[in-house]
Amino acid sequence: MPSPHDFPEASRRVGFSHNRLDRQSENRDAETLARAQADPQASFIVFIDDRVLVDIAPEPNTVLLSPERSAEFGRDEASTILLGYQEGLPVLACTAAFDIETLPETVKAVDLRSLAGGGSVPSDQVGAVAQGRSFLLWQDSHEFCANCGTKSVMALAGHRRDCPNCGRQHFPRTDPVVIMLAVDSDFCLLGRSPRFYQGMYSCLAGFMEPGETIEDAVRRETFEEAGIRIGEVRYHASQPWPFPSSLMIGCHGKALTNVVKMDGDELEDCRWFSRDEVRTMLDRTHQAGLVAPQPFAIAHEIVRAFADGEVGFS
Amino acid sequence: MPSPHDFPEASRRVGFSHNRLDRQSENRDAETLARAQADPQASFIVFIDDRVLVDIAPEPNTVLLSPERSAEFGRDEASTILLGYQEGLPVLACTAAFDIETLPETVKAVDLRSLAGGGSVPSDQVGAVAQGRSFLLWQDSHEFCANCGTKSVMALAGHRRDCPNCGRQHFPRTDPVVIMLAVDSDFCLLGRSPRFYQGMYSCLAGFMEPGETIEDAVRRETFEEAGIRIGEVRYHASQPWPFPSSLMIGCHGKALTNVVKMDGDELEDCRWFSRDEVRTMLDRTHQAGLVAPQPFAIAHEIVRAFADGEVGFS
Repeated sequence: MPSPHDFPEASRRVGFSHNRLDRQSENRDAETLARAQADPQASFIVFIDDRVLVDIAPEPNTVLLSPERSAEFGRDEASTILLGYQEGLPVLACTAAFDIETLPETVKAVDLRSLAGGGSVPSDQVGAVAQGRSFLLWQDSHEFCANCGTKSVMALAGHRRDCPNCGRQHFPRTDPVVIMLAVDSDFCLLGRSPRFYQGMYSCLAGFMEPGETIEDAVRRETFEEAGIRIGEVRYHASQPWPFPSSLMIGCHGKALTNVVKMDGDELEDCRWFSRDEVRTMLDRTHQAGLVAPQPFAIAHEIVRAFADGEVGFS
Repeated sequence: MPSPHDFPEASRRVGFSHNRLDRQSENRDAETLARAQADPQASFIVFIDDRVLVDIAPEPNTVLLSPERSAEFGRDEASTILLGYQEGLPVLACTAAFDIETLPETVKAVDLRSLAGGGSVPSDQVGAVAQGRSFLLWQDSHEFCANCGTKSVMALAGHRRDCPNCGRQHFPRTDPVVIMLAVDSDFCLLGRSPRFYQGMYSCLAGFMEPGETIEDAVRRETFEEAGIRIGEVRYHASQPWPFPSSLMIGCHGKALTNVVKMDGDELEDCRWFSRDEVRTMLDRTHQAGLVAPQPFAIAHEIVRAFADGEVGFS
């Protein structure tokens, strides 16, 4: 039987999307967590602030530290959550308060974008890191019950928080974001946020709101940011984005209008690019030095599909 | 120019998805809200507990009540949020504490599923009701800052809550849910939850988790609930689902295995159905009285697309 991880789907071409952990989401309780934490064959993914520890002694490098190795950095038992299982062995995530200046030479503290872009660890580990970071950030920023203000307690091996006062159960957030490329025959619409590094242009994007479909969110955001009306919308790929916990939903949209009216609060430039021009931005040969996002970003994959002629609106 | 609302996309065939409000999400502040609340041409969607008021005096019936009409039911000014604009006029949502037994004969309190299924008000109003209900429920259940437990205050005309203590900004939740139909040539996989009404079978579904793609969530949920491995996944349609605030992401998946191993905690039955059998469940002519969900549910649309031969995995 082919492994689902080997399918050439578009979502598999982006960073953070290769995650082979068996989550066993129906099997999460305090006892399972305690057993996993005590398992001598368990692996720990250890976060120090917004960086993850990578052991560079073995080949290939790994974020999966042994119980002993992770204990050296004072992993926090109380914050530890169970992510799932790899080949039957538990994989957990936790934080540690350790001075990264004093790490041994064989261990590096790496930020997540570098990890996703760098190829320094196997890509399925990058997916597990994204999962762990989102869960830990959620735990850390949701210590109190939003319904009554009481301090809540961790449940379901880190996958829920329960309020001892009002009884409300709180689950981790996953915030859907639409990210899209408006297409008009051989042209596509890219924008530039003042936060981008020099020369970069990317897809428009925005958080979905309650009460709208994916297609309507694509139309609303494109109109609000660029004044362009979108007709037909096609889903292309999705990506977990652990900053802190978004689900990027990548789409192409057929433009019905072409006069750009940019939202100056969000963007400093927004214009149409020809297919030929975006090709040079993707392969970084653009004459004026303009670039598209790096391959680990879903925006790259959305633009690449257009550049390669995979998007054909009638 | 064709209206985007007239496109025959699959997401347009489900309940709660026809929402023509112009949200103007970049234009939300206290002053805009106050101006909208005081506008004599504003409309109010009024909720009493989990029901919405429908004025059945005019034809067609409407959930858009005038300032005077809505004031009769003691609409709560403090909970009022700005949903957007219809033909340039503001549309707001609010709660009211009014005894529904004492409503006048021309006003009915209708639950949202009946509204979505019934055709009693224009379908674009049903979408606006979904939007309003999700926002109001979020406001009501998120009065406190999850980060520090302090009582937070409404901001952005009801679209954000700010913490006066730690400064954290909180946005409404939209919880992505995958809902999918596993397909094996002329057969598809349907399950029955003990919560369903008699004879109903539907798609499997589950909340997405941090750190997974849509496609991986479809594979994980199908395997956890039914023991079936899924390969290729195709997005079909999405639907806002205001109970309380989910985004249903509807997919078809190609089954790689066919022996069902059901999760007995979630389901009381789960089996393969032929294309011919599901056709009779959709049109409610099944010999044993089995039925598929009602047309306003996205599960109906997902099953219908399979029954009508629109889903062809190679």
